Amino acid sequence: MATLKPVRVGICGLGTVGGGTFNVLMRNADEIARRAGRPIVIEQVAMRRDNPDCDTTGVKTTSDVFEVAGNPDIDVLVELIGGYDTARELVLTAIGNGKHVVTANKALIAVHGNEIFQAAHENGVIVAFEAAVAGGIPVIKSLREGLGANRIEWLAGIINGTGNYILTHMRDEGRAFEDVLAEAQALGYAEADPTFDVEGIDAAHKLTILASIAYGVPLQFDKAYTEGISRITYDDVEQADNLGYIIKHLGISKRTESGFELRVHPTLIPKERLLANVHGVKNAIAVMGDAVGPTLYYGAGAGAEPTASAVVADLLDVARDITTDHHYRVPYLAFSGIHENDNNLPMLPMEDIVTAYYLRLLAVDRPGVLARVATILSERGISIEAIIQKEATEGELVPIILLTHRTREKHMNEAIRQLESLADIAGPVTRIRVESLDEQE
Amino acid sequence: MATLKPVRVGICGLGTVGGGTFNVLMRNADEIARRAGRPIVIEQVAMRRDNPDCDTTGVKTTSDVFEVAGNPDIDVLVELIGGYDTARELVLTAIGNGKHVVTANKALIAVHGNEIFQAAHENGVIVAFEAAVAGGIPVIKSLREGLGANRIEWLAGIINGTGNYILTHMRDEGRAFEDVLAEAQALGYAEADPTFDVEGIDAAHKLTILASIAYGVPLQFDKAYTEGISRITYDDVEQADNLGYIIKHLGISKRTESGFELRVHPTLIPKERLLANVHGVKNAIAVMGDAVGPTLYYGAGAGAEPTASAVVADLLDVARDITTDHHYRVPYLAFSGIHENDNNLPMLPMEDIVTAYYLRLLAVDRPGVLARVATILSERGISIEAIIQKEATEGELVPIILLTHRTREKHMNEAIRQLESLADIAGPVTRIRVESLDEQE
Repeated sequence: MATLKPVRVGICGLGTVGGGTFNVLMRNADEIARRAGRPIVIEQVAMRRDNPDCDTTGVKTTSDVFEVAGNPDIDVLVELIGGYDTARELVLTAIGNGKHVVTANKALIAVHGNEIFQAAHENGVIVAFEAAVAGGIPVIKSLREGLGANRIEWLAGIINGTGNYILTHMRDEGRAFEDVLAEAQALGYAEADPTFDVEGIDAAHKLTILASIAYGVPLQFDKAYTEGISRITYDDVEQADNLGYIIKHLGISKRTESGFELRVHPTLIPKERLLANVHGVKNAIAVMGDAVGPTLYYGAGAGAEPTASAVVADLLDVARDITTDHHYRVPYLAFSGIHENDNNLPMLPMEDIVTAYYLRLLAVDRPGVLARVATILSERGISIEAIIQKEATEGELVPIILLTHRTREKHMNEAIRQLESLADIAGPVTRIRVESLDEQE
Repeated sequence: MATLKPVRVGICGLGTVGGGTFNVLMRNADEIARRAGRPIVIEQVAMRRDNPDCDTTGVKTTSDVFEVAGNPDIDVLVELIGGYDTARELVLTAIGNGKHVVTANKALIAVHGNEIFQAAHENGVIVAFEAAVAGGIPVIKSLREGLGANRIEWLAGIINGTGNYILTHMRDEGRAFEDVLAEAQALGYAEADPTFDVEGIDAAHKLTILASIAYGVPLQFDKAYTEGISRITYDDVEQADNLGYIIKHLGISKRTESGFELRVHPTLIPKERLLANVHGVKNAIAVMGDAVGPTLYYGAGAGAEPTASAVVADLLDVARDITTDHHYRVPYLAFSGIHENDNNLPMLPMEDIVTAYYLRLLAVDRPGVLARVATILSERGISIEAIIQKEATEGELVPIILLTHRTREKHMNEAIRQLESLADIAGPVTRIRVESLDEQE
């Protein structure tokens, strides 16, 4: 074995993921070579500063990532610098030089992926990005290859560990969002500016990628609806619990007759779902295929070595496919001819999605309030599944909790506008979407 | 796209899985062709009788599976007849004729896999078997490719749906094993002779395959320890529940310094594990890698279309690799040179495995019984984590429930022999192994 020549890798970026990739390639070199049928060697590392976790003795280093992109001794450039502009230029340069690319950069793929794949296609090179979604979980491989027999009907995932950490601790410890966020920041699970994670932008990047490879449509990050978890209160967490639900921050994409849903938002899901039992920083993605039925993939969504696990798995694929004609490779977004295919259904605007809802209203304790609320809903064809009305202390506002059946978001928006205009209702109506996600059906 | 010529498939067996495969290939033909970059067409079907779920109009059929193996118009033979001898002969004939093979036959691969892969290697053909383990869950692809960066440390799975169905209903409904088994037979979830499923043989076939591709060692079904669920009582289920555990029938394989564990048996696992929340006929496999940490794969482990999903995914892989030199293909058992590699650690005999234990004893309510039990355990270095002693009604035997820390099976066997020889202890000691499976660590 290993009579084939080694695959030579240039790692750009030796931060958390770059360091992890370096260490996994070094530590498991023998097993990796037995798997690939040939060694995978680190030819060069581009880094701005030393990583104390990595022993780069004997490895060629540079501070200029573009040196790696131009190095004729390198077969595969591993882009682990993150960000948009430099990463895009670096990847396009490497592709232009005929190099294969492996990246963990979800923002880059979600926003510039169509352009990058087009360039890669023209140059006959691979661009692999398993590490861009859900860290070490092989969900891209599962979707693109393992479930290749299926029409994917929907997928839903916990694809941001920070958000799940916060929601887990809010629920388990009865704490407020801000309080847990501060703790997550102190522990290094959340950034100083947490917007990217808690407002759902990171999750929307990943969801955009998952949806494209699920349905074989171009990447459309700008069409994703994004709502964060910063307005979730412990009261909502508790009410959801009473109703048999857990609140998770999910990326959800569904195939419908008129188009695809693409949305990130807090979601009530039944407690018995496996997704509801995914705690802390872990990730999981449920995928429904027409043949296989419900499936689920679980693991670490971030971190040095979990993400490295996915980067190195991509390197193994590259090692196997490096001499293969590109017609025989797995298409970047799972399907051939995506860009020639004009039959694609659109990504639906949020007003057109259909889901169930949890509503929390603060009402003046007056006769007829509930009747007025129910009338507004029923006039828009929204039927109520459950109502909880807490007992009022005299003179105080009464919270009313409603669960509705499925309806179009547009009708719910109208209903909420009208509810908020009622004299009986104080302040804004809290609205959280509800999904049954019948993964055990 | 689709300028490449079609891949021509011969399906042998049009029963449950064969029928599902036929229907999925027909229904999703367009999407499958867009994924493979070329059509996958059914060239011939060998069947003993019509399948009322399949419309074979216009498809060439035969009643002789060996006709398919000799048909020069066929690129890939899909073996879905099951069993050992004819299946082995069919697959070896197809391989000898230079055909690629896709099979869902776990017994065939677990027992004759080494011979089949050797023949396939010599003939430069692919033998793919995703459907042999856990139906539609792409766990073989995940282990062989998605986790290729990792040294796999352990795996544990619910890999027999019948057994999980029975345990789920025993627990949820407080029923006895025999009662739920009879129901499962009536519903078609269990065979008239349920031995294969409930005694763990089917699970041991699958575990054998998973362990080989996890560690890169030859298939060794004869080394698997197999214990069924027929002796589990509702009392054990209830006691486990009180202690915070659920009883699942697991296939478990671990890498240790002295060898690999390979065992199928009822197991207490903590309630909060995702595996503990996998109900009914569903399957799930937890896999721990040194880089990725804990991961889990969940879905339907059997059934016509879920299994077909895996068969067709294999056909997609064959379609991509059909022209590839076999050096570049994923090795059958994940690693190159398995048969040349004489450094393989052995599969450990059951006496040498290390685990924790749940014990249930029936004791005469006499002073000093507990002390005598504790002494026997401590003399063998077995320490006790928890004891539950129920109150005795006068003159009755008292159940004593013990949870121990981890110890070597050999020591536990000796301890149990001595416990059973005590005059204070009535009847055999019930012993169920306990695993923490820190999948959320």
